Amino acid sequence: MLPARTLVGTLFLVAAVSSAAVPAATAEDECDLPEEMVREIRSYAPVADKIIRFVTEGKFKGRTWNKLAGFVDKFGSRIAGSQNLENAIDFMLNELRKEGLDNVHGEEVTIPHWVRGRESAKLLEPRMQTLPILGLGGSIATPKEGITAELLVVDSFDELHHHKEQAKGKIVVFNENYTTYGESVRYRDYAAVEAAKLGGVATLVRSVTGFSIASPHTGWQDYDTNVTQIPTASITIEDAQMLSRMFKRGEKLKVRLYMEAKTLPPAKSRNTVAEIKGKEKADEVVLVSGHLDSWDVGQGAMDDGGGAFVSWLSLAAIRKLDLRPRRTLRAVLWTAEEEGLVGAASYVEKHKSEEGKLNFVMESDEGTFTPQGLVFSGSKTAGCILKEVLKLTASINTTNFQLEKNVGSDITLWTSKGLPGASLMNANEKYFWFHHSAGDMMTVEEPRALDLCTALWAVSSYVVADLSFGIPRN
Amino acid sequence: MLPARTLVGTLFLVAAVSSAAVPAATAEDECDLPEEMVREIRSYAPVADKIIRFVTEGKFKGRTWNKLAGFVDKFGSRIAGSQNLENAIDFMLNELRKEGLDNVHGEEVTIPHWVRGRESAKLLEPRMQTLPILGLGGSIATPKEGITAELLVVDSFDELHHHKEQAKGKIVVFNENYTTYGESVRYRDYAAVEAAKLGGVATLVRSVTGFSIASPHTGWQDYDTNVTQIPTASITIEDAQMLSRMFKRGEKLKVRLYMEAKTLPPAKSRNTVAEIKGKEKADEVVLVSGHLDSWDVGQGAMDDGGGAFVSWLSLAAIRKLDLRPRRTLRAVLWTAEEEGLVGAASYVEKHKSEEGKLNFVMESDEGTFTPQGLVFSGSKTAGCILKEVLKLTASINTTNFQLEKNVGSDITLWTSKGLPGASLMNANEKYFWFHHSAGDMMTVEEPRALDLCTALWAVSSYVVADLSFGIPRN
Repeated sequence: MLPARTLVGTLFLVAAVSSAAVPAATAEDECDLPEEMVREIRSYAPVADKIIRFVTEGKFKGRTWNKLAGFVDKFGSRIAGSQNLENAIDFMLNELRKEGLDNVHGEEVTIPHWVRGRESAKLLEPRMQTLPILGLGGSIATPKEGITAELLVVDSFDELHHHKEQAKGKIVVFNENYTTYGESVRYRDYAAVEAAKLGGVATLVRSVTGFSIASPHTGWQDYDTNVTQIPTASITIEDAQMLSRMFKRGEKLKVRLYMEAKTLPPAKSRNTVAEIKGKEKADEVVLVSGHLDSWDVGQGAMDDGGGAFVSWLSLAAIRKLDLRPRRTLRAVLWTAEEEGLVGAASYVEKHKSEEGKLNFVMESDEGTFTPQGLVFSGSKTAGCILKEVLKLTASINTTNFQLEKNVGSDITLWTSKGLPGASLMNANEKYFWFHHSAGDMMTVEEPRALDLCTALWAVSSYVVADLSFGIPRN
Repeated sequence: MLPARTLVGTLFLVAAVSSAAVPAATAEDECDLPEEMVREIRSYAPVADKIIRFVTEGKFKGRTWNKLAGFVDKFGSRIAGSQNLENAIDFMLNELRKEGLDNVHGEEVTIPHWVRGRESAKLLEPRMQTLPILGLGGSIATPKEGITAELLVVDSFDELHHHKEQAKGKIVVFNENYTTYGESVRYRDYAAVEAAKLGGVATLVRSVTGFSIASPHTGWQDYDTNVTQIPTASITIEDAQMLSRMFKRGEKLKVRLYMEAKTLPPAKSRNTVAEIKGKEKADEVVLVSGHLDSWDVGQGAMDDGGGAFVSWLSLAAIRKLDLRPRRTLRAVLWTAEEEGLVGAASYVEKHKSEEGKLNFVMESDEGTFTPQGLVFSGSKTAGCILKEVLKLTASINTTNFQLEKNVGSDITLWTSKGLPGASLMNANEKYFWFHHSAGDMMTVEEPRALDLCTALWAVSSYVVADLSFGIPRN
């Protein structure tokens, strides 16, 4: 996760990333579900315990980490349009079939195809220093000889507009403060547009993270069709602060930026689908999901290998335990999330007629660190049902529940329309330290945390899919 | 800090890095200083408070950070042999004179001159992936066409010797676990020698740090004159773990390593010296120090810009307050610490005849984060005096005292011979996250912490230099 322009749920993001602090219950949080409903949910305690034991202590123990490590080591990064991604999808389709899942197939999607190419930035004045950069997704290239220009360094869009007469012909550097991802990401997203409006020739944007070890962080950015496109790249926190200090001392700064980035014709990719067919209401669906594509740096182990693997391995665990819920349990591994929920948007469009049968949607795309519970979006009654379901996971401490207007990244396409959904709440305080950087490697993931995530995911999706009653909508 | 081969004080290092946990006082820690001695030390309370207020709240507030930022932004990294380092020394000599300090001068030293040149590593099999590297100090180059070879990946020297028949012709990758710097750094230091003994053609060593965001960490390494020299570089934790996982799965791994590194003829550099001449016992010296050279990545703000600046700014603060102690207070900004305490060794050698007059030596080279007190080496009585001196800094919470056999990096050349000395104890739990990496930038340093370091440094050095009695030796 996630492209800035889809940040319908900015508030959610703020909350999710500081999800350790769960608000205390208030009167209006109190649930008043019919007693028989509560009794039915509680009757799942034995099967929930069985799933949890199997995944965290039984034969499934360590399997999520092992499978994920094998996958990300085999394919590396998987950016939309790359052969890596398509090979990874082929591999996954085969894996899902080997797990004995039902209706395993790919669903074709046309996706953007942006490629980075070589890129570099060098401070030329007042002294020479290489600046590590990552071009931002969708950026155009510089001319072949690069762009050599003076810098205008600003701390905010406001400051840019205060100095708008200075922007012309300059490379504009944004040294925005990091508050939350949801708030600060607008600099990555709109830097090029805002600078170009004032005649800026390129932008260098401080990476959107609260902590760095000289690590640039990429991500999608948006041009405006009415504004000249200029090359745009991320720089490290350290360099942004250094350039800002130098600029404020009145020094003349000059940089040579070189980028080969280009957008190729749209490519073909696939959402990857697997199911456990429901035994009674097979046309009703509970959907679990994560995205298989990643940025083109690191291994995409965290964003979103972990989320995708927790999702399909939940189905694999349920299948291994010979459980089959009333409704169909469907895992969808989205493609081209990073370019703007492209796979999910195509899926939503193609499956519009079945939307009435979509009972509950789940997504894990904010890390698979130690799980804590669910972030939920939907009606009060639906929330109360989910809270009760979460109690079944008390033995692994994942009963936290947080209500938000919107949840997730890909699934916001549904939850923003009122469909009930949930995303994984986890101890993801360091998520943005690695996010969209070369540090998104398997080292970030931990076997026990992944087992717990899979267990929580499997229990909650299975129980919701098997209840005699559906999750009510708004 | 610090080259591995000078790790006389390994235990100290372990302690310093976890210095937050200060051992509780035991009976043998108890001090029994003569009452008049205690009374005399306590009489410095007004002057100590004056220094502390001046540095942390008065005109000096923020000055250490500002001066350090200006310096590291102006010169960037300052590796031994570079023009940057000599320019930085010229600048410092001028600064120290402008501060009105006494006897400002450089003392010439012949130093090693190693240059990195271009370098790269690429995984070729089973798939293509660029591996970020930093060649290790002193390494030789690869041939012009690079070295393309299969990998042998081991977790330890023991494991290497268990598989010694497999090393021939291989690039040996060390994926050692990180315990402490003092313990794990032997892999950086001796990897090339151990691998070459078994016919290895190059080594890639996991960076010596407990945490990484895809950051390689350089550092000096030692060849053995009796063993073939082979190129050696650091890789990231993430890549070392990935290669290890792949190797353990039985995959054939192949890497192309390219390094232009070379050792040029020895160069001339200088230790930078400034003083406040003592008003009564000018031949007796209390010495504060840090090193001006750095690695050739990042800005050397933490290692050891902070330590060097805390040291000279302590003298500057004392001068600004018109204080002049009985003994001479001397700041020495070492050169070529990173290549093996080369500047300090030269200084010790040239000043041997004055060693009897060296009353107390201090060094800051393990970070200038929030200060906590002093790590001390010397006799029990000397320690008791220092503990009493530290009480004068109670208002800034820097009264912690820790006894070690040896302290510091450069000053171990004295403390290992029994001279009393101290190094700065500070909240440096993250020190090795940035150490010898591109992340050693000004972003690591914090104005308030630096003020507190300078205040502690100034009070303790001034009081020790002014006491009517000298610090007793072992």
